[in-house]
Amino acid sequence: MTQCPQGYRFAVASAGFRKATRNDVALLVSDTPAVASGTFTQNAFPAAPVLVAKQMLAERPEARAVVINSGQANACTGDEGLQNCLATRELIAAAAGIRAADVLPASTGVIGTQMNMDLWKAVAPVLGERLGSATPEDFAKAIMTTDAFHKIEYRNVRLSGGEVRFVAMAKGAGMICPTMATMLSVVLCDVAIKAADWQRLFRDAVEVTFNRVTVDGDTSTNDTVYGLANGASGVRAATSADLAALAEALTDVLGRIAYKLVQDGEGGSKVAHIEVTGAKTRADAEKVARTVGHSQLVKTALYGRDANWGRIVAAIGRSYADFDPMDVCVSLCGVRVFCKGQPTADDFDAELAGPLAERDIPIQISLGNGPAAYTLLASDLGHEYVDCNASYRS
Amino acid sequence: MTQCPQGYRFAVASAGFRKATRNDVALLVSDTPAVASGTFTQNAFPAAPVLVAKQMLAERPEARAVVINSGQANACTGDEGLQNCLATRELIAAAAGIRAADVLPASTGVIGTQMNMDLWKAVAPVLGERLGSATPEDFAKAIMTTDAFHKIEYRNVRLSGGEVRFVAMAKGAGMICPTMATMLSVVLCDVAIKAADWQRLFRDAVEVTFNRVTVDGDTSTNDTVYGLANGASGVRAATSADLAALAEALTDVLGRIAYKLVQDGEGGSKVAHIEVTGAKTRADAEKVARTVGHSQLVKTALYGRDANWGRIVAAIGRSYADFDPMDVCVSLCGVRVFCKGQPTADDFDAELAGPLAERDIPIQISLGNGPAAYTLLASDLGHEYVDCNASYRS
Repeated sequence: MTQCPQGYRFAVASAGFRKATRNDVALLVSDTPAVASGTFTQNAFPAAPVLVAKQMLAERPEARAVVINSGQANACTGDEGLQNCLATRELIAAAAGIRAADVLPASTGVIGTQMNMDLWKAVAPVLGERLGSATPEDFAKAIMTTDAFHKIEYRNVRLSGGEVRFVAMAKGAGMICPTMATMLSVVLCDVAIKAADWQRLFRDAVEVTFNRVTVDGDTSTNDTVYGLANGASGVRAATSADLAALAEALTDVLGRIAYKLVQDGEGGSKVAHIEVTGAKTRADAEKVARTVGHSQLVKTALYGRDANWGRIVAAIGRSYADFDPMDVCVSLCGVRVFCKGQPTADDFDAELAGPLAERDIPIQISLGNGPAAYTLLASDLGHEYVDCNASYRS
Repeated sequence: MTQCPQGYRFAVASAGFRKATRNDVALLVSDTPAVASGTFTQNAFPAAPVLVAKQMLAERPEARAVVINSGQANACTGDEGLQNCLATRELIAAAAGIRAADVLPASTGVIGTQMNMDLWKAVAPVLGERLGSATPEDFAKAIMTTDAFHKIEYRNVRLSGGEVRFVAMAKGAGMICPTMATMLSVVLCDVAIKAADWQRLFRDAVEVTFNRVTVDGDTSTNDTVYGLANGASGVRAATSADLAALAEALTDVLGRIAYKLVQDGEGGSKVAHIEVTGAKTRADAEKVARTVGHSQLVKTALYGRDANWGRIVAAIGRSYADFDPMDVCVSLCGVRVFCKGQPTADDFDAELAGPLAERDIPIQISLGNGPAAYTLLASDLGHEYVDCNASYRS
């Protein structure tokens, strides 16, 4: 059975950042300083909390707290936005009895409006009083924007010195509502680990999980993943076998959370598992996977359960990756549909009708005999996406 | 008043390539050999007619006829598809009394199914008999797939020796139904012109018209533009002033047709005019314009008439073009909304409500003081797109 990592307390509250009244700010505090890592958006217009957190972690890979609000992204807000973010950190630190330099901030919501600092001043003491009263589930719910469900995953792993625990929370970017200010996640662990080891494990796990999902290709201004390890279990990652076990568990828990980002959305939503193999380089494989995963025509065909595999081939063809078109083979739901420049049969509709009604749709693309591969999870594109994004702010 | 270029005859018929009974094959024949140019898709899986036509025009820049069918794309069909395309050319040539080597083919429709050659055998003689009975309008209608309206533009231009005429027909890629096998266009002129001059004018005009529109970024396997000039007006493009006048007219008529590709679709559809200026290089300007024009979030905001300019800035930020974020200014419908890293006002909703209800939406992006610029026309993304593309084949 899984448990929450030891030594972390949680609090949530409703500050009023959103129109609907519900919890929209979440705080977690580690009882002791935790080793901390972060990965952030590569957008050229990073949000104020991204700028603040990047500098914090560059100076010192350690933190005590993470505070996240939904409803306002604090992105494209200039120097005023930066000062507001720093002031927020001070308010939270005072309320939690820790130092401002130990508080990692994150925001999600509408881009381009300034934070309402009166709301922050009112809510910070409330969060401080409530510390320890909330669960990780409450935290995961409070950071939602238009998510259809909250996203949380647990995992235990046994090291040489005993058992340690992970919990990961995330918001964002489901099929139904891949809103702008998008993907935030926090993963907590109670292992005792050197900062350099934790950073390496964390970076590697993010690369093969969060960096391998796409909903609409719209990289946000606020994307952030934080990873904290506070040592409260008393178990040290001492051996290389320990590090390998931790890496496996961390990748597993982040992979499950990343899947949920794509899966978010009930009804017609799909998760395409795009697996490109036989590429000359990893860059070629990635180019093909992303072109197929971002194709509006492939996405709408998935939504419509249409065995229109020609759209997959056409997307491969406009990826401008390096391959010989005559070497390309494509399988859809395990059925080889295209090879050596032509279809393998006249009609796949009957054979694929059942598999295409499932949530998970495997798309396997072999580019030839090269050594490189890439896997990407991608959502479909349906009416719920249009509904949500045509009127997100209203 | 405008007239059809002289010396061209048209025919249309219903072969049965489509489920619905309507004209689905169109033929035009020039009375004399015409100077001919073509531009084609850069997709790595070009359709059979693209392969055939490219080779024809590489051997000799001259043609007598263009035959286009809708309903079947003859793409991803391998050697059988290639042989079918060549056989089609023979059937049409025999029916029209010309040489197969003078017939330019094009196809549009579903990818990955083989042509029904019995239908071609039956329809070819019908087209031959009907030559001269149809109008350019009939031609433009017969090549439609899921277009909401047919696309045709006329233009006259006076040269030193007299007047010459253009007509351009196109199908495809409107907002409502940017289906896969997509953009086909033919422009006819009755000027007498050297092949090299015509090819240069044609290539330049396509570059600033058809190559500057986007609906969904899904470059098709069949995109083709043909340009024929048969000299039937008896007017020769003799001077450099004549060539300049022809270039202006050709760019104008192709620009109007290209606009219609984006505009296709009634109701909520939009045409975003994305103008990027001040870039260091043209490649940077193009990267920014295309990232904004392809952003699902920008497109759904346009559809929803939402002044959510933060999505435009976020898209610029993920274009990874070379610019200083602090130099970027964005105007939406003529209103400057973002400059020097922050919004220029708190709220633009009231000011932009009217302009965002219009069909044409100007988006001006200044990246700094660089010399390079790029303009792109882009459609929005709404329910009609999903409806059409989730069930295109059925």
